[in-house]
Amino acid sequence: MKVGDQHYHTIWLNDDNKSVDIIDQRWLPHEFRVVTLRTIDDVAAAIREMWVRGAPLIGVTAAYGVAIAMQDDSSDAALDVVWEQLHETRPTAINLKWALDEMRGLLRPLPPGERSAAAYKRAAEIAQEDVELNRRIGLNGLKIIREIAARKKPGERVNILTHCNAGWLATVDYGTATAPIYLAAEEGIPIHVYVDETRPRNQGAQLTAWELDGHGVPHTLIVDNAGGHLMQHGQVDMVIVGTDRTTANGDVCNKIGTYLKALAAKDNNVPFYVALPSPTIDWAVRDGVKEIPIEERNGDEVSLVQGRGEDGKITRVRISPEGSPAANPAFDVTPARLITGLITERGIAEASAAGLKSLFPERT
Amino acid sequence: MKVGDQHYHTIWLNDDNKSVDIIDQRWLPHEFRVVTLRTIDDVAAAIREMWVRGAPLIGVTAAYGVAIAMQDDSSDAALDVVWEQLHETRPTAINLKWALDEMRGLLRPLPPGERSAAAYKRAAEIAQEDVELNRRIGLNGLKIIREIAARKKPGERVNILTHCNAGWLATVDYGTATAPIYLAAEEGIPIHVYVDETRPRNQGAQLTAWELDGHGVPHTLIVDNAGGHLMQHGQVDMVIVGTDRTTANGDVCNKIGTYLKALAAKDNNVPFYVALPSPTIDWAVRDGVKEIPIEERNGDEVSLVQGRGEDGKITRVRISPEGSPAANPAFDVTPARLITGLITERGIAEASAAGLKSLFPERT
Repeated sequence: MKVGDQHYHTIWLNDDNKSVDIIDQRWLPHEFRVVTLRTIDDVAAAIREMWVRGAPLIGVTAAYGVAIAMQDDSSDAALDVVWEQLHETRPTAINLKWALDEMRGLLRPLPPGERSAAAYKRAAEIAQEDVELNRRIGLNGLKIIREIAARKKPGERVNILTHCNAGWLATVDYGTATAPIYLAAEEGIPIHVYVDETRPRNQGAQLTAWELDGHGVPHTLIVDNAGGHLMQHGQVDMVIVGTDRTTANGDVCNKIGTYLKALAAKDNNVPFYVALPSPTIDWAVRDGVKEIPIEERNGDEVSLVQGRGEDGKITRVRISPEGSPAANPAFDVTPARLITGLITERGIAEASAAGLKSLFPERT
Repeated sequence: MKVGDQHYHTIWLNDDNKSVDIIDQRWLPHEFRVVTLRTIDDVAAAIREMWVRGAPLIGVTAAYGVAIAMQDDSSDAALDVVWEQLHETRPTAINLKWALDEMRGLLRPLPPGERSAAAYKRAAEIAQEDVELNRRIGLNGLKIIREIAARKKPGERVNILTHCNAGWLATVDYGTATAPIYLAAEEGIPIHVYVDETRPRNQGAQLTAWELDGHGVPHTLIVDNAGGHLMQHGQVDMVIVGTDRTTANGDVCNKIGTYLKALAAKDNNVPFYVALPSPTIDWAVRDGVKEIPIEERNGDEVSLVQGRGEDGKITRVRISPEGSPAANPAFDVTPARLITGLITERGIAEASAAGLKSLFPERT
């Protein structure tokens, strides 16, 4: 999508056909920095230290990481080493493991001399597949936005609330939850987005607001506490969020706080949609609340808030007493009963085992 | 309550019997500063700039403000001037207007020469009445905590979640929502409090956590997004919050985000209680969502976060792009249907017109 006047992806191969450039997302929204990844250690650091984040983008970055590794040493042993090294950077990221398995599965049968070229080719395909997946999610979600717009008076804006960043910064382009929003804006539908700041890491304030600002989509930043009040007062027409993992029954594991917004949407008859590429469906899991282990992250993410200081430098401030410990569960599970629909690349499914099966009959 | 080894109130008359000391809450939790208020301008600044906050404490501070004003000029005109000057500092604060009306109503019939002494006497009484009100709320809420503790295995802790600061810092002592917690802790019930940080102003992280830390009550800071997940997993035994305004039907207007916690409590069968001194009941209002206007505060409270920087100084950091506007509704309304009970100084009422009438029959 656009950053000012220029179109960007979050990751791209350089003209040397070897190194890969990424947007280093740690400095957003205050500084736009592009970083070149030349070695496997660069790639591992980029994933581990969250220069890139978002399940699809992590997968693409890892795929390019395998390609970069194959340049210097394309042996079976090197293939196993890069799989291990990258897998341990974010062990719970489902797309990371998927991409690493995909690359190893493709490369292992090939003669070592052909592996590097094949790896770059496949990494580029995975990136392109992600763009296409999101575009199709966007087209399906766009239908819902068009219907809401059709019920409005001419020129009246469609208000969408989103949580965290399931935007183009989390993917290669378009994003998942944001794809329908960008396509609606391109079509000229008057759209406005309420952006949950999304504590503790503030991905909404730092990334989603920056994306929408860069692409020129009207939006308003709100605290995570505010969405229920806005829904009570008819200020929200629909909610769209992303998902880190969707169960076969349609439960959705997403950034902490998603569940609270789904409860408020249900209580106020606001449609609550989840945008998801089908690779995030975990067909082996049914009951999300009972079965999905939730990552507990460092309490410093709660106690310390990053931002730009009065001197213009990016810094952190402590908001709580030194003596107060913090708990930091990173995700929660929204039960399927609270979800109006799952927007996938194949269409919109009811959030249920039957709904998902009807769109993905090959998985039964 | 205790700050380390020493017992404090939030406001007290000095030995000169004229000036009043307060805890300047703007610097908590990082710095504990006591400030002396000697003039009516000091008092007005303390209320307007939130050196003191919390409905009951604002009322007591205003009462002392009238007393301070009467020292120099106890004329009818001076009485009207101080009423106006203090009322405009926080025009929506119901206790502020109550305290000012109470003081003017008491003093006007008195000869000017007796007004100053009567004003200090009445201000001290209002402060003492607040302490007693909260202690009685505490005793009533303590019964609920005892019942929960009785169902636990010996030594197993009672987990209470609270939002914002309805603590002793918002009152003269004990607090409203925290009064049952402090009394339970004094009684030796193993208690643990989940403290919502309460964006945008972080009163949970800055004030409630500091209070509990100072008094030695085990607690854990969490982001506002986390409570639903904790309730889904049986980590919360009850929720207690305060209220800025309660309607005759039992709807509760409290800090933004309270409604979301009430929805999560309902969805998980966690009891949700509101602690309230009866002066916060607005008997003229019935439907809180429809009738109560919600204060929209400056968006900078969302975009800028205050804390202690790496250099030890208290500063603010910007968390969002300059181009992104922020909306900042300060309160929301929790409908009575989501509330298990209202803990008042007279006992626990069902959150309904009938429930409130049974405790306050004189208001029918």
